Amino acid sequence: MLMIPGPTPVPEKVLLAMAKHPIGHRSGEFSQLIAETNENLKWLFQTKNNVMTVAASGTGTVEAAIINFLSAGDRILVGSNGKFGDRWVQIAEAYGLNVTTIKSEWGTPLNPDDFAKELQADSEKKIKAVMITHSETSTGVLNDLEAINKLVKEHGEALIIVDAVTSLGSYNIPVDEWGIDVIASGSQKGFMLPPGMGFVTASDKAWEAYKTATLPKFYLDLGKYNKSADKSSTPFTPPVTLYFGMKVALEMMKEEGLENIFARHTRHKEASRAAMKALGLPLFAPDTHASPAVTSVVPDGVDAEKIRSVMKNKFDIALAGGQDHMKGKMFRMGHLGFVSDRDVLCAISALEATLTELGHTPKESGVAAASKIL
Amino acid sequence: MLMIPGPTPVPEKVLLAMAKHPIGHRSGEFSQLIAETNENLKWLFQTKNNVMTVAASGTGTVEAAIINFLSAGDRILVGSNGKFGDRWVQIAEAYGLNVTTIKSEWGTPLNPDDFAKELQADSEKKIKAVMITHSETSTGVLNDLEAINKLVKEHGEALIIVDAVTSLGSYNIPVDEWGIDVIASGSQKGFMLPPGMGFVTASDKAWEAYKTATLPKFYLDLGKYNKSADKSSTPFTPPVTLYFGMKVALEMMKEEGLENIFARHTRHKEASRAAMKALGLPLFAPDTHASPAVTSVVPDGVDAEKIRSVMKNKFDIALAGGQDHMKGKMFRMGHLGFVSDRDVLCAISALEATLTELGHTPKESGVAAASKIL
Repeated sequence: MLMIPGPTPVPEKVLLAMAKHPIGHRSGEFSQLIAETNENLKWLFQTKNNVMTVAASGTGTVEAAIINFLSAGDRILVGSNGKFGDRWVQIAEAYGLNVTTIKSEWGTPLNPDDFAKELQADSEKKIKAVMITHSETSTGVLNDLEAINKLVKEHGEALIIVDAVTSLGSYNIPVDEWGIDVIASGSQKGFMLPPGMGFVTASDKAWEAYKTATLPKFYLDLGKYNKSADKSSTPFTPPVTLYFGMKVALEMMKEEGLENIFARHTRHKEASRAAMKALGLPLFAPDTHASPAVTSVVPDGVDAEKIRSVMKNKFDIALAGGQDHMKGKMFRMGHLGFVSDRDVLCAISALEATLTELGHTPKESGVAAASKIL
Repeated sequence: MLMIPGPTPVPEKVLLAMAKHPIGHRSGEFSQLIAETNENLKWLFQTKNNVMTVAASGTGTVEAAIINFLSAGDRILVGSNGKFGDRWVQIAEAYGLNVTTIKSEWGTPLNPDDFAKELQADSEKKIKAVMITHSETSTGVLNDLEAINKLVKEHGEALIIVDAVTSLGSYNIPVDEWGIDVIASGSQKGFMLPPGMGFVTASDKAWEAYKTATLPKFYLDLGKYNKSADKSSTPFTPPVTLYFGMKVALEMMKEEGLENIFARHTRHKEASRAAMKALGLPLFAPDTHASPAVTSVVPDGVDAEKIRSVMKNKFDIALAGGQDHMKGKMFRMGHLGFVSDRDVLCAISALEATLTELGHTPKESGVAAASKIL
């Protein structure tokens, strides 16, 4: 049982759809599949623009989101309060961008005021882009995209580039309404699919910037993907079987409806957090900025790795560990994508039993606390 | 029925293996799977070095094979006698390499003498790499890798970089014995898998060049993949379900044995070519340099697209069309990967019936000609 923030659970009918034999990716039948899934992805991304699919992990897709719209030496602000924020700084620097990192401690949200300061001081409009990680998977912090985006809009020149790898499909991001310029996500997250495909969409303003952007690219050249998407095609061989699965997964999402999907993730976030509090397990992210996709816990007096080990060996439930300097000190419970109330309750009951097994019988019931919210 | 040079047919047990639910990619179980498949990929690539897997199409993987070992301004020879050779020239130029293109007409093999001339004139050893497409999928020409590689070895300085997208697993390439520096391929070709994953391996000499290579990269940074492969891990989320399928596909290949696999592809190439000759269908590639993966035909007096259309609509057999300027003038029959004698015979019998249907009843029997070889 996968209670990690990716790969996330995949519905049986999606798995079976993917077991279908591949077809030719230049056939009329596949072209129809591209057209249909592109329309449904537009619905999910709340945009009129093409949602381009790239055969790549989330990192590859976010790299595309950065490098297609900038040139070497361009000034860019990158928010970083976790492993993934750090990674986007590394990518921006690898390509010779002039990066100003806006840092917050791990577990603390990015502070919009820090962005405001840099953006308001930039009277010459040298800042070409502002990049943030919306849901920081390494910490369970949800950064305030809406507030930071507003500041970028006031600046007027800079693009906003968003890593929505674990927030797209779990939190409401009205991409066109907010004027998000570039936003990227990955299949093994809110999309209820196995890993192997990323998604990215770009605004008209971003496409204008694309025209003069000179960072070298070919496989990750989004202009090629956009042009192909217009013709219901792909520039390179797409992951055909993932497309079969995506068709079914998107149909399931449409049936549930965006509001219901977001409400379910919020409910699971709140139930998980209430349970952790009842169980005496300290939460790493504050209530005001908690990710709807993943809940991070830094146990006090109990070994995080022992908790993960009992959960895995006794109950066959996978929890994620801490990353980088938080390795061994944290566990992260994913509740992203194809997750039901039953799954959340099941994981919490097992966690309760695990604490008892480890000699830390909780005073309060996590299940009771979660039940109230569910 | 897929008789195209990719996606190629996938065995049922590979499809079913891929229908298994994803597991965590940082689990011990997945680490074992990486270790096992890496060993079997080394066997298939005939190398002692890690075979790195990248979640990308063939193009992404070949791009990685080029950009990891070179710096802007480096001189590179790129052989081009088809669509894919042209593409690697475009990639090299997109990254600011100093490209000398060694051209041959489509349908004609690259001439080793053209490489010899450039390499022998380079007394200052400015040529950092020579890149060729081994099996040019757009034309069905198999370039003479062994001869060109020998010339590169005589030069001493340059790396040899090989696009083996449709030759790896269909033709004998003793990578370490020949001293091939960098070689790349893709899952939906000889590997009997759906698209979504590429493979690349690099020699000690290539890794030396990597240390000083400065082209920007992050997702396609092979150093990261190599380091992770040493620890039976991946730097980014791998396509978990493709790994499940790869395990089974590689076991099937090991059971068949390299010599048998290569002999089967040679037999299918010869049977297909004999049949096309009997059917009066002109072959695009010469007998001396014919790809074991795909047979290209430029029909005379019959419309190539009509042949493809009848094959598809009446017999549900997919043939590939011509690419770029050969669009509409050519059809290409793939016989790569999970293809049996029965499949080849079946496609040829349908082709024979298709010609009759189109009013071009062949004088000789293609089936008879193929049968003699099978």
